[in-house]
Amino acid sequence: MASAARKKIYVQGPRPDVRVPFTEVALGGGEEPVRLYDTSGPGSDPEQGLPGLRRAWIEERGSGERNTQLHYAKAGTVTPEMAFVAVREGLDPEFVRDEIAAGRAILPANVNHPETEPMIIGKHFLTKINANIGTSAVSDSIADEVEKLTWAVKWGADTVMDLSTGKHIHETREHIVRNSPVPIGTVPLYQALEKVGGDPVELNWEVYRETIIEQAEQGVDYMTVHAGVLLRYVPLAADRVTGIVSRGGSIMAAWCLAHHQESFLYTHFRELCEIFAEYDVAFSLGDGLRPGSIADANDEAQFAELRTLGELTRIAWEYDVQVMIEGPGHVPMHKIKENVDLQQELCGEAPFYTLGPLTTDVAPAYDHITSAIGAAMIGWFGTAMLCYVTPKEHLGLPNRDDVKEGVIAYKIAAHAADLAKGHPAAQAWDDALSKARFEFRWEDQFNLSLDPDRAREYHDETLPAEPAKTAHFCSMCGPKFCSMKISQELKDYARQGMDEKSEEFTRSGGKVYLPVVDGA
Amino acid sequence: MASAARKKIYVQGPRPDVRVPFTEVALGGGEEPVRLYDTSGPGSDPEQGLPGLRRAWIEERGSGERNTQLHYAKAGTVTPEMAFVAVREGLDPEFVRDEIAAGRAILPANVNHPETEPMIIGKHFLTKINANIGTSAVSDSIADEVEKLTWAVKWGADTVMDLSTGKHIHETREHIVRNSPVPIGTVPLYQALEKVGGDPVELNWEVYRETIIEQAEQGVDYMTVHAGVLLRYVPLAADRVTGIVSRGGSIMAAWCLAHHQESFLYTHFRELCEIFAEYDVAFSLGDGLRPGSIADANDEAQFAELRTLGELTRIAWEYDVQVMIEGPGHVPMHKIKENVDLQQELCGEAPFYTLGPLTTDVAPAYDHITSAIGAAMIGWFGTAMLCYVTPKEHLGLPNRDDVKEGVIAYKIAAHAADLAKGHPAAQAWDDALSKARFEFRWEDQFNLSLDPDRAREYHDETLPAEPAKTAHFCSMCGPKFCSMKISQELKDYARQGMDEKSEEFTRSGGKVYLPVVDGA
Repeated sequence: MASAARKKIYVQGPRPDVRVPFTEVALGGGEEPVRLYDTSGPGSDPEQGLPGLRRAWIEERGSGERNTQLHYAKAGTVTPEMAFVAVREGLDPEFVRDEIAAGRAILPANVNHPETEPMIIGKHFLTKINANIGTSAVSDSIADEVEKLTWAVKWGADTVMDLSTGKHIHETREHIVRNSPVPIGTVPLYQALEKVGGDPVELNWEVYRETIIEQAEQGVDYMTVHAGVLLRYVPLAADRVTGIVSRGGSIMAAWCLAHHQESFLYTHFRELCEIFAEYDVAFSLGDGLRPGSIADANDEAQFAELRTLGELTRIAWEYDVQVMIEGPGHVPMHKIKENVDLQQELCGEAPFYTLGPLTTDVAPAYDHITSAIGAAMIGWFGTAMLCYVTPKEHLGLPNRDDVKEGVIAYKIAAHAADLAKGHPAAQAWDDALSKARFEFRWEDQFNLSLDPDRAREYHDETLPAEPAKTAHFCSMCGPKFCSMKISQELKDYARQGMDEKSEEFTRSGGKVYLPVVDGA
Repeated sequence: MASAARKKIYVQGPRPDVRVPFTEVALGGGEEPVRLYDTSGPGSDPEQGLPGLRRAWIEERGSGERNTQLHYAKAGTVTPEMAFVAVREGLDPEFVRDEIAAGRAILPANVNHPETEPMIIGKHFLTKINANIGTSAVSDSIADEVEKLTWAVKWGADTVMDLSTGKHIHETREHIVRNSPVPIGTVPLYQALEKVGGDPVELNWEVYRETIIEQAEQGVDYMTVHAGVLLRYVPLAADRVTGIVSRGGSIMAAWCLAHHQESFLYTHFRELCEIFAEYDVAFSLGDGLRPGSIADANDEAQFAELRTLGELTRIAWEYDVQVMIEGPGHVPMHKIKENVDLQQELCGEAPFYTLGPLTTDVAPAYDHITSAIGAAMIGWFGTAMLCYVTPKEHLGLPNRDDVKEGVIAYKIAAHAADLAKGHPAAQAWDDALSKARFEFRWEDQFNLSLDPDRAREYHDETLPAEPAKTAHFCSMCGPKFCSMKISQELKDYARQGMDEKSEEFTRSGGKVYLPVVDGA
């Protein structure tokens, strides 16, 4: 991606220590430079971690029982984090505060994770994407996971979830949090389960409580809590094609059945809220009963749990704890909109955060595509953050290449959603790239791409010579046939009026070079 | 893809020579085999071409002025081609005939292309996909193009367009047609332009007429004709961000302006119909003014041309010529549905055939994904065939790998559309794969995949050992944590009633092995 034309700049906010990063792309043809949202962070030294950008802001506020951005927003305070986000999104700081205060957006910012560059998740902002990483029993290297983190944010991940389940969970997370310029999410149940030897029946509130405090102390910004899997909902999943596919959901279902008691996550939810409020950990209320196949989409098990998540959202808000709601999963296109509409209604417009959804089950190895379709649509309908799916989904653990494929597919989905939502800043990027394309500014076209490296590489496969970068044609049609070229001439022509020009056109422009840039 | 469990079978139709191919996937676990639509053809010898499956049927009918499937359908005749299609789609032959008679579907079947296995394009049938191939001035190998054809149909292309523009256009097309088990489409304007030395101003009706007869004689099944680019529409494209991006559209616009006359494709349209009727060539009425960027979507230039295409559709029907209508292009999600609704209204429900559309301009090198999003949606809304886009779109000519990536992305889009449309045969495939997934029948899962090779390869990257193919876990969570496994146990449990079972569960199922198959 290295190109002199792409560089990181910082835009000064309302106070000296609010400096907001962007990628600025310099263009030819007399065009103004374009600024793109940049999640890559200030770079990192694996031994040292990142600088504590937010440390002074956190210290200024001191510590209290309700250290949350929601608390300050409700009190009418625009925090430096909110001011940062306002510059980043090109919006008014008061608008940012309002959206957080209403619960329609969250700004995940654990007081113990000062390294984050503030970002916001809400339907009235740019659509965000999350990348999952993490060790497992069969793949266990901390260095690999930190590299995946850095790689994911380089390509545009807005948050990263550490889903480690192998050994060294604590140490892996420590390295990830200290090196992450984006909010980190976890599913604390996985570590709690390791602590009780992997037997879900042995889980209890005490070990879970200890685990979330440990993780909150480290700086985890949001935690998935499957508190909506109630005892009475479990039988609703019995006749499904794929039962319960959420790991957390199945663990809690096993616990509920074994003890024949209501989930300790549900019965202790207010205590959870007190802890989360102290650190400003946000809830990501997990959908433990989400559908794992097209056949199971939008069924009673799924929507029963969603109603409970709505109830828990309102309890969290009592404690000024920020909340988002997780969503499916596998959903055919015609059933996607109902998911958002119902979630927004039941959960008081709390941000929706969905995994895909995959729009068909038949393409393992391509589920970044099956799910980018669903993700783009659900983003348009109002989902605030899209959890990526990599080509390895259902088959294996993603490597570095898979992480990139997943992130790019989801940046596409998120941006397509922003265009369809009519986000005021979205279309300028497309227009700049299309104008560069039309004017044969190849380098500008590459530099404005989501993946400049690959765009350049693909172009050079057929026409590697340097002059081809400025040529007024491409390999698809060759030099004799370019529709873009003739179209530019037609444009000049039409502007000058048609009647008197046809003769002149035949003399001069009639000898134009023509071919296709865009299909047939 | 070679696996003993996947084999080609033929289903006998109502007459002995109607034998319809399917891929049959044998499954374990006592499951019935699954039959999948198969476009790969009987295989081919590049020297000999394919057998003439339809030759006897064509000869039986003799030759007349209106040799078209539409003519027979209107007359109440179910042709062997229609009978073949009925078996292939699992529908009633009379329904097939009705849809063709009404103009809502086409069965492309040039009398000189007896090698095709009949297929149908219409909104009430399975959504089809087209793959573009063809030589150009900078890439010119007939053998490569025939290989791309064979490769495209192996992965599921329903039709193939030969868009060759380099030397040897006639010879390239001959090899493609003779080796193709699927209908072949072309844009005759490209060859006509070569005949006049590449200068659009020199084009005329005579050279165009000669070219379409030449191609009809060879067996081309449908031809893109940009007859809707009228002189008065050209200035409408002048203020666009990307002008006219269709090659055919820009050529005709140049001609109209240079001569200050109406397009010869429009003024000679009835003569075209007479020729097409004789060979049963179908019109693919080209959208020469389609948008080439998000900014230009759904503008007056595009929709003015669409109204003219509606007018031409009705003229073609007077001659019993089959018609489909080409559509865009680049369209943001919220403007997609309007394209289908308007096309269906203006063109009397003639099948819509769209290129993508791409839902954002910012991801060159990933436009198979930006456009699969739009393609899935427009398919759901009623588009009958989706023209693929490869990762090389806007950058270079697709190679063999790109052809496969494009075809798979579009098979996903088409199948997602079929699920959302509620096609009666669509969901059984997803259910079979999901059930295999839930029951850890790994080989069944691979064999039911759109790309069995890659699914198997990705699985084996992390867990290559043969026993892992029957293991009740996968690499994502390892053996200690499988949500699918516990979910199966919960299923058994719930069926037996909850009250009396919790104690027993603790004793037996409490020691279950858990983890995730599907995200967090």
